[in-house]
Amino acid sequence: MSTNALPTQSTDFPGWYGEVVRRADLAENSAVRGAMVIKPYGYAIWEAIQRALDHRIKATGHENFYFPLFVPASLLAQEGELVEGFAPEVAVVTEAGGKRLEEPLAVRPTSEALIWSTYARWVQSYRDLPLLYNQWANVVRWELRPRLFLRTSEFLWQEGHTAHETEAEAVAETLTILHDVYADTLENVLAIPVLRGRKSESERFPGAVETYTLEALMRDGKALQAATSHYLGQGFARTFDVHFTGRDGVEQHPYATSWGASTRLVGALVMAHGDDRGLRLPPLVAPQQVMIVPIYHETDQADVLHAAAAIRDELGAAGVRVRLDDRADYRPGFKFNEWELKGAPVRIELGSRDLAAGTVTVARRDTGEKHQIPLPRVGTEIGELLSDIQTSLFRVALHDQERRTLSNPDGYQEMIEYLREAGGFVAASWCGSGECEARVKDECSATIRCLPLVEQPERSNTCICCGREAAQSAVWAQAY
Amino acid sequence: MSTNALPTQSTDFPGWYGEVVRRADLAENSAVRGAMVIKPYGYAIWEAIQRALDHRIKATGHENFYFPLFVPASLLAQEGELVEGFAPEVAVVTEAGGKRLEEPLAVRPTSEALIWSTYARWVQSYRDLPLLYNQWANVVRWELRPRLFLRTSEFLWQEGHTAHETEAEAVAETLTILHDVYADTLENVLAIPVLRGRKSESERFPGAVETYTLEALMRDGKALQAATSHYLGQGFARTFDVHFTGRDGVEQHPYATSWGASTRLVGALVMAHGDDRGLRLPPLVAPQQVMIVPIYHETDQADVLHAAAAIRDELGAAGVRVRLDDRADYRPGFKFNEWELKGAPVRIELGSRDLAAGTVTVARRDTGEKHQIPLPRVGTEIGELLSDIQTSLFRVALHDQERRTLSNPDGYQEMIEYLREAGGFVAASWCGSGECEARVKDECSATIRCLPLVEQPERSNTCICCGREAAQSAVWAQAY
Repeated sequence: MSTNALPTQSTDFPGWYGEVVRRADLAENSAVRGAMVIKPYGYAIWEAIQRALDHRIKATGHENFYFPLFVPASLLAQEGELVEGFAPEVAVVTEAGGKRLEEPLAVRPTSEALIWSTYARWVQSYRDLPLLYNQWANVVRWELRPRLFLRTSEFLWQEGHTAHETEAEAVAETLTILHDVYADTLENVLAIPVLRGRKSESERFPGAVETYTLEALMRDGKALQAATSHYLGQGFARTFDVHFTGRDGVEQHPYATSWGASTRLVGALVMAHGDDRGLRLPPLVAPQQVMIVPIYHETDQADVLHAAAAIRDELGAAGVRVRLDDRADYRPGFKFNEWELKGAPVRIELGSRDLAAGTVTVARRDTGEKHQIPLPRVGTEIGELLSDIQTSLFRVALHDQERRTLSNPDGYQEMIEYLREAGGFVAASWCGSGECEARVKDECSATIRCLPLVEQPERSNTCICCGREAAQSAVWAQAY
Repeated sequence: MSTNALPTQSTDFPGWYGEVVRRADLAENSAVRGAMVIKPYGYAIWEAIQRALDHRIKATGHENFYFPLFVPASLLAQEGELVEGFAPEVAVVTEAGGKRLEEPLAVRPTSEALIWSTYARWVQSYRDLPLLYNQWANVVRWELRPRLFLRTSEFLWQEGHTAHETEAEAVAETLTILHDVYADTLENVLAIPVLRGRKSESERFPGAVETYTLEALMRDGKALQAATSHYLGQGFARTFDVHFTGRDGVEQHPYATSWGASTRLVGALVMAHGDDRGLRLPPLVAPQQVMIVPIYHETDQADVLHAAAAIRDELGAAGVRVRLDDRADYRPGFKFNEWELKGAPVRIELGSRDLAAGTVTVARRDTGEKHQIPLPRVGTEIGELLSDIQTSLFRVALHDQERRTLSNPDGYQEMIEYLREAGGFVAASWCGSGECEARVKDECSATIRCLPLVEQPERSNTCICCGREAAQSAVWAQAY
């Protein structure tokens, strides 16, 4: 680990991000441009996110399956909007088994085409519906400006693909996923508050009738799209000739949804909670929730290590992810810095003075506060502390998001200036026209992040851009 | 589900296998030759296998990470034996992002090359060792004769890649994985008894100094390689220039291992336990351990369903994976057949006559036995029954393996005839020469599955093939 200070967030946020990802051992670039190596510490965070999502995906009635990596190019080309949306990013296999292939194979950028061409065989009657399936997979979308976790040529994700008898059921599914799977994971596990909304037409998923999104605010004032859930109507069913006999005996097409969340969420964690000392991980996703750092000299080494091991065993037995950092080659100060950089929520320091007093020193990563705990109370208090850090990180992030949200700016210029400096979210009324949307993007690179599901309480009746009548609120920001 | 009878194992084992995989909803072929769709029921079995392996991989001190799907062709070509072994099976990406790539990218057939080229950056000192890492990933090996689960052009697996300071440590790692991760999972979770042994030189992994293997016997008398663990020596470290400063201050190369198990294990489960009625799943990997089938008429429907739901809730609360098959459109007999085909270990039948008597009827899938259980004892007895089915399936398979193993045949001709008919394993002494090995293969398609780690008790001193002095036992069989 380098001992140089990190760049600060306020002076160089992108530099800070890159250094934290590298030095905290989250990920690094590989020999293939744009494809990253997810290192064990970063992967353990992803595994915690996976567990949280997978649990909720199954609790809402879905099962996992697995479809192939390769999609025949002709199949991908069948869905016009889909191929148009993804063609520039597709990687193509043209040789295999020592021969040129008769038909090139696309490496999946997303799996709607392959899955819906298969659903044609799985659906005959309304009795076969709904299909409520998900897969965990890698996908490839060629990136010209890659950035670790945020935009990579290959990433890991889950993609859900469901088929329903009625439109109402499919729309309800899309919202169940948005609220009960994604928002619940983001807010209650990753401790990241999110805006829930619909995308404007220009930002919709290729082929979607409606795209729902969760938008999170990073600590540099930029937004990050955390997860999306698409209502796809009957388009894919028509393209791939999926139909069923309904309750009324009539042949009809099912209604589709798809939804995904990816390793990008690791990047969101870094940028939503990190500070100038490094990561601050919410306990529910921290690979190590508690790090014990023993402080000893040659004379008291055995006693201190023995007591530290006892605390580790007690916490471990209580289900806490705890580690004793007993590496002999490193000094305590070095270990403090390393685990602050890596964002371990709680540090326990234990030296012979503590032992004599019957206490340990506890430092929380989120606030930096230190206090003593009597040894017999370590088990109880650490549990409470972890739970407090989890809710506190969320509260702080929510407060930050509210503080950085400019609602109903006085005029268009104020909005543009706020967005240009990446001040945060701007919530204002919008007429719904693509021209106004494009004008804002031209002037300050900000896009409509979402049309919030919950309307602003005191919304103006006129569009912030053109002054015409406004039908809805929109939330703008610069975005990752 | 088709209602035609399955082909029987004794008359058409391959046909039986294909039909069971298809009708039990484990997997099906996709639009891409050799790549399969793993259906939800098959994937749930794979998830149970994954959980068992992942738990043991972590319990033995390993962490997961993730390396990219694509490997620059030049990097793959650096390791001579590796590229020679895999070149005929590699799929190659030549276009991406709308352009022809300057350097083609191989889709990983295995990840030694990419990982060891990266370990060069991760290892400087003996303090950085050992590296004990694993990844869950998809790999592609082009197959000319694909077979669902057994040989597919894309499959899912875990691949471990470790680096060690000494040869002794690396060899010990290879054996820890063989015994504590793989054999423990195979025998105590999948209920499949395995022979543990080394591969002969001709069957070793490309680049390996020693390949250890687990060999299982299928119900048609053919062997299946269930998992392998390779001691790779310093070859990869030399090729990719990985070195470290040792405790003695001298620069040296670390010692490598790699090890993998794949979705092929789902095929092994089918062929090791299945019978003429379909799958017989060990409870520890069964997606549904207990199926409740209610038997009712219009008049008693509410009472029966209510009682059935209460049993489901009680078993579910006790941690049993239980489902109530209350589909109104299907008759009980149809459900019995379907869940027998799908291998659910226990079926509970519940009708109003049972209710009046205060009992349920319980049928075990492995033996077909049926008996009554008083309602208040369902919770306890089902738990014991599941545990009994788990050990019983193992015992039956072990007995079958022993019965089908011909030890020290009277002569070469007896051995060849036994192997030609796929009678099972033949254990006999071998001189160690490739000529004898090739001769057997030519005459009856059987290969040396392993040189068992535990020697035969009464081994002949002469080679069964050539009569020369024999140094060791070998186990032969036809194999998948």
